[in-house]
Amino acid sequence: MHGVLSGENVIVAGSEADTFEFRGYGRKKGKGVKGEREYKLELSLEEAAFLLEAGKIVITKGKGSELTLEDFFKHALGIYPNFGARYIVYKDLKERGYVVQPGKVDFWLYPRGTKPGAKTARYFIRILSEREFLSVKDMEAILVLAHNMRKEPVIAVVDDESDVTYYDVKEAKFDDVIEKREEREDRKRKSEVSGKGKASLLGDRVTLWDTDLAVNLYENDFYGKLTNENRLLLSLVEAAYLLKKGLLELSLSFEQFIEHAAHIESEFMAKYAVYEDLREKGLILKTGFKFGSHFRVYKATNQRHSLNLIHALPEEHVFSMPELARAVRLAHGVKKRMIFSFTEKVGEESYIIRYVDIGRMKL
Amino acid sequence: MHGVLSGENVIVAGSEADTFEFRGYGRKKGKGVKGEREYKLELSLEEAAFLLEAGKIVITKGKGSELTLEDFFKHALGIYPNFGARYIVYKDLKERGYVVQPGKVDFWLYPRGTKPGAKTARYFIRILSEREFLSVKDMEAILVLAHNMRKEPVIAVVDDESDVTYYDVKEAKFDDVIEKREEREDRKRKSEVSGKGKASLLGDRVTLWDTDLAVNLYENDFYGKLTNENRLLLSLVEAAYLLKKGLLELSLSFEQFIEHAAHIESEFMAKYAVYEDLREKGLILKTGFKFGSHFRVYKATNQRHSLNLIHALPEEHVFSMPELARAVRLAHGVKKRMIFSFTEKVGEESYIIRYVDIGRMKL
Repeated sequence: MHGVLSGENVIVAGSEADTFEFRGYGRKKGKGVKGEREYKLELSLEEAAFLLEAGKIVITKGKGSELTLEDFFKHALGIYPNFGARYIVYKDLKERGYVVQPGKVDFWLYPRGTKPGAKTARYFIRILSEREFLSVKDMEAILVLAHNMRKEPVIAVVDDESDVTYYDVKEAKFDDVIEKREEREDRKRKSEVSGKGKASLLGDRVTLWDTDLAVNLYENDFYGKLTNENRLLLSLVEAAYLLKKGLLELSLSFEQFIEHAAHIESEFMAKYAVYEDLREKGLILKTGFKFGSHFRVYKATNQRHSLNLIHALPEEHVFSMPELARAVRLAHGVKKRMIFSFTEKVGEESYIIRYVDIGRMKL
Repeated sequence: MHGVLSGENVIVAGSEADTFEFRGYGRKKGKGVKGEREYKLELSLEEAAFLLEAGKIVITKGKGSELTLEDFFKHALGIYPNFGARYIVYKDLKERGYVVQPGKVDFWLYPRGTKPGAKTARYFIRILSEREFLSVKDMEAILVLAHNMRKEPVIAVVDDESDVTYYDVKEAKFDDVIEKREEREDRKRKSEVSGKGKASLLGDRVTLWDTDLAVNLYENDFYGKLTNENRLLLSLVEAAYLLKKGLLELSLSFEQFIEHAAHIESEFMAKYAVYEDLREKGLILKTGFKFGSHFRVYKATNQRHSLNLIHALPEEHVFSMPELARAVRLAHGVKKRMIFSFTEKVGEESYIIRYVDIGRMKL
């Protein structure tokens, strides 16, 4: 078999094109008719390298001499600086029996055994190497693309050992954890609180002195930490939320309080936005510190096992790949999902909070 | 019982001083003789708050009226802005039966049941809250202090739920993993390699084309990833090390290679310093990417289970507490120790690499 290198493709013609096409490689080029001499097939550089390494093709540049694998790689690296990682992912997927089509930015992945064209791709794969970075902005762009193209995004990370780890990225759904309305109303009746409790801001937490309210909030809604003396120690986010709900009598207004809190805790605003949003959905949030995240999330009806870890990212955050791997691996190790949140500007003064669920994907 | 607030202490006099001292609180102040009226005991603010909350003491400011717990906390916060966290740690340790002496920066911790003064403290405890940060410089200072004072350092982190997590910090010892000289010589004989193998830098990794050398390096010393075609894919650190050892024939010199590598991988120099240092000690390092760290470390004689994870920190790195918690928790979950490394300047042009082993401590 013989192919001719032409920029970002290798061209195979005639009956050889048929053979490769039959085996799932390449895309038809031009108007030639199958089986005829003018029939041409374009192989991607990854496909060509795979066939070259397996000794199934001879590649020349124009009418020049045969290219070695090294020559070919050097050419490919001139076109895709990350060709090394691209090729490793391509090969890994082929060896696992998937049908994969390399594109300019992403790869398209089809279910096992399908023929490209026969079905649409299910996933698109963004390729990164262990030493690369991914910003929150990149993540946003990936989600928008996934939505527009109706594909599921996958991040493939090639590590220093040339192993590939796949992560699926999706918008987090909390439907399964949000309590039913009846459950919620019922719970609300039980925890009906009347009047405010006297509280003091003492350093970086708030003490609620009213022991009845303290016990009620702790036992029914899992707020704070109850001391032996039935004082309730509230974190800054918890106190801000209860203050907004009108349950605390404090020397500061809600606005003054969050200003103060943001001053002593750099991530306060990002954390509070998530806390309020999910508490309003009926979920219970406690610190996820022991798991290295901002929050662990409980269903209101099951306060024993938390389901998710949530980490609120500042807009300008940039992930290193080991950081991402560490968070996801830890969450899986304790049987939770890892969710990252960030705020997205959707208007002049309006923001929405996005929740992105990232998990390790076993291909 | 009655105490008088005096700046950073509460003073108790006469027979009351005796009682508290007997129970392990306070330190003698002045020259008074035990049992006499002039005998005075100084309580720390944490000790006093603990007794006040338990209703075992009445505290006044000079001849003023009795202070409430809230008044007392406000006074204490004026002296120690992190009094909230300090008090939570103090209380936690007391409730666990430890003898603890609050100092200006750190607490001193004595074994259970001992009397302060009778024995020397075993640990000093640095207190941080979940939202605080710890720089590499801080870590260095803690290790120096520990060494000079012959105490073991502990970091106590108070989370948003007012729970305390304790971490012990020590210099990592690799003695248990370093192979015995005989083992090493034996292994060396087996893996004796003669001559160089032709290799190419292809993007962000190096391919070794010499299949004999590739198989030898992979099987005996666990370098790189061996492909089905017996090419060896080497990471940048592996290739740099083998190049320095004179085993690779590459178009770049060692100096050119590391300059290039540092250009494409921002953390290359920090990673390489650790890689070379530990390979020279006879250990085997592979990427720790799947565990969110730079390296996993193997004994040369057991290439199945890695013992440690190592993450090389740039000198200016600053830990957030969730970041520290995440790394340590993950390492423990997979039964490894978490080791952070950083370089410390010890002369005009000379550096040493420090390895700090941080683990969760069950008190």
